[in-house]
Amino acid sequence: MSLITVGTMAFDAIETPFGKNARIVGGSATYVAYAASNFVKPVQQISIIGDDFPEEELQELRDRGVHMDGVVTVPGKKSFFWSGRYHEDMNSRDTLVTELNVLADFDPKVPDSYQGAEFLMLGNLAPKIQLNVIQEMKQRPRLIAMDTMNFWMESAMPELKIVLRYVDMLIVNDAEARQLTGLFSLVKAAKAIMAMGPRFLIIKKGEHGALLFHDDEVFFAPALPLEDVFDPTGAGDTFAGGFMGHLAKTGDISFDNMKRGIIVGSAMASFCVEKFGPTRLKEVTADDIHTRIRQFKNLVNFDIELV
Amino acid sequence: MSLITVGTMAFDAIETPFGKNARIVGGSATYVAYAASNFVKPVQQISIIGDDFPEEELQELRDRGVHMDGVVTVPGKKSFFWSGRYHEDMNSRDTLVTELNVLADFDPKVPDSYQGAEFLMLGNLAPKIQLNVIQEMKQRPRLIAMDTMNFWMESAMPELKIVLRYVDMLIVNDAEARQLTGLFSLVKAAKAIMAMGPRFLIIKKGEHGALLFHDDEVFFAPALPLEDVFDPTGAGDTFAGGFMGHLAKTGDISFDNMKRGIIVGSAMASFCVEKFGPTRLKEVTADDIHTRIRQFKNLVNFDIELV
Repeated sequence: MSLITVGTMAFDAIETPFGKNARIVGGSATYVAYAASNFVKPVQQISIIGDDFPEEELQELRDRGVHMDGVVTVPGKKSFFWSGRYHEDMNSRDTLVTELNVLADFDPKVPDSYQGAEFLMLGNLAPKIQLNVIQEMKQRPRLIAMDTMNFWMESAMPELKIVLRYVDMLIVNDAEARQLTGLFSLVKAAKAIMAMGPRFLIIKKGEHGALLFHDDEVFFAPALPLEDVFDPTGAGDTFAGGFMGHLAKTGDISFDNMKRGIIVGSAMASFCVEKFGPTRLKEVTADDIHTRIRQFKNLVNFDIELV
Repeated sequence: MSLITVGTMAFDAIETPFGKNARIVGGSATYVAYAASNFVKPVQQISIIGDDFPEEELQELRDRGVHMDGVVTVPGKKSFFWSGRYHEDMNSRDTLVTELNVLADFDPKVPDSYQGAEFLMLGNLAPKIQLNVIQEMKQRPRLIAMDTMNFWMESAMPELKIVLRYVDMLIVNDAEARQLTGLFSLVKAAKAIMAMGPRFLIIKKGEHGALLFHDDEVFFAPALPLEDVFDPTGAGDTFAGGFMGHLAKTGDISFDNMKRGIIVGSAMASFCVEKFGPTRLKEVTADDIHTRIRQFKNLVNFDIELV
């Protein structure tokens, strides 16, 4: 099975209560690729970069089975840049700088070599761009998942609602689910979102875990309680990468297998936050991942006799 | 096995986004008793009430196996009264009125008929009062759990730290755990609290579930995702009552059985919030409880092969 991931490959400057990093590789597609490549090959990247994006980073991703046919390099231009400062609770942050650079001209094409992919992860981009990618696919993937954010709800809600009709799964955080529906109750918001198109919905709650909804079923996975969350940047994309990587590896899109995917995604996200940017994701081994999944089992596993 | 519960029996006036209730029976010991009496008899109540506390309520509790030998009625005085208004998120509230009334003179005594109880739940009261009750026990209970709140951390921290040395378990919410330790990370706060005395710690996170800590072990139980949280008043005490009731019923204070207790407590709390005050707790049957525990199993249960 193969997984196409569409999104940014970029630079971030991050300040957290633990320190700051002036310029580190980031971007949604970068995190998805680092996470997913532990489970599935190839990961087929669609993105746009400037000629400042480090060749070593591209090579490191290639070495992990990430294809770059869909990554366009624009000579003489800079990669997308984001700078932000996290508050003490690590759940909220201020954006300090957003430089679109090459992203302003992002018009993603699906290379012929990517056609036939079974899984498609649409990172947080303009809904119009997300829809274009779906329409570029000659054969509909078995599962199309997408991310989005408040910015598109405020500036492109009609287009966003159209894309939602074409995807199988939406992956958003709790604030986004509430904003999209105007409903405070996440259970009610989930029903409203599933009525907009997606049959599956993941609501991420940061340190409070994630919920998976489908029909009348709901599954909850906690975040691993960590001594410190060093840098949450990319944790949501890493979660999505682990989740989609697991689905693509197994080729199984049943609700039960999605539960496993959520745990895998949560495990990957728990690594991501341990160091700046994707640093920690580059270090983890299959053994590390298995150990962490076992920790998740112990964290929530209970056995109760109903007499 | 028997369970002593020490706390308030009171009146509450509650405003939530769903409505208001001018005067409904409440109080920590009331909620603990309604929850715990589903699992263990007797529940042995220690509290103080005015002569305005309804006899029907006392009788309803007696019918559920709650003993009242330790409940003092002060003639001509009023019961403790609290009034509060919940914000839209239901996680925060403003206290509008606090009338101590009989609670100002609360000097709890443990009746002879309660001596020998294996389980003791100390509701949120002045640390000095909590310590007095412990010292009144001729034989130390197998498990002493206590609740507390920010008010005592601000006004009676030295006394609070003394009581903590005498209890086995502290049950607090996330904000209280942080305030008690000055540590933002709940994992670090948990270690610091266990170093103060309690071998076991439960950190309640409201709609985000609850964490159980012991040595290096940690267990997490989610809250049930509900369409609406109608009134969260008493949910924390109901959780504690279900938890302690399960422990007292089984007589098993292993970590594994505490996990089950947390699920039982979470199930009881999920009923509590469905109606004003303890209304819903009076309706639920053993079947309702079993059905809800099964929902919790489905909510978190996953099976993953590590290959």
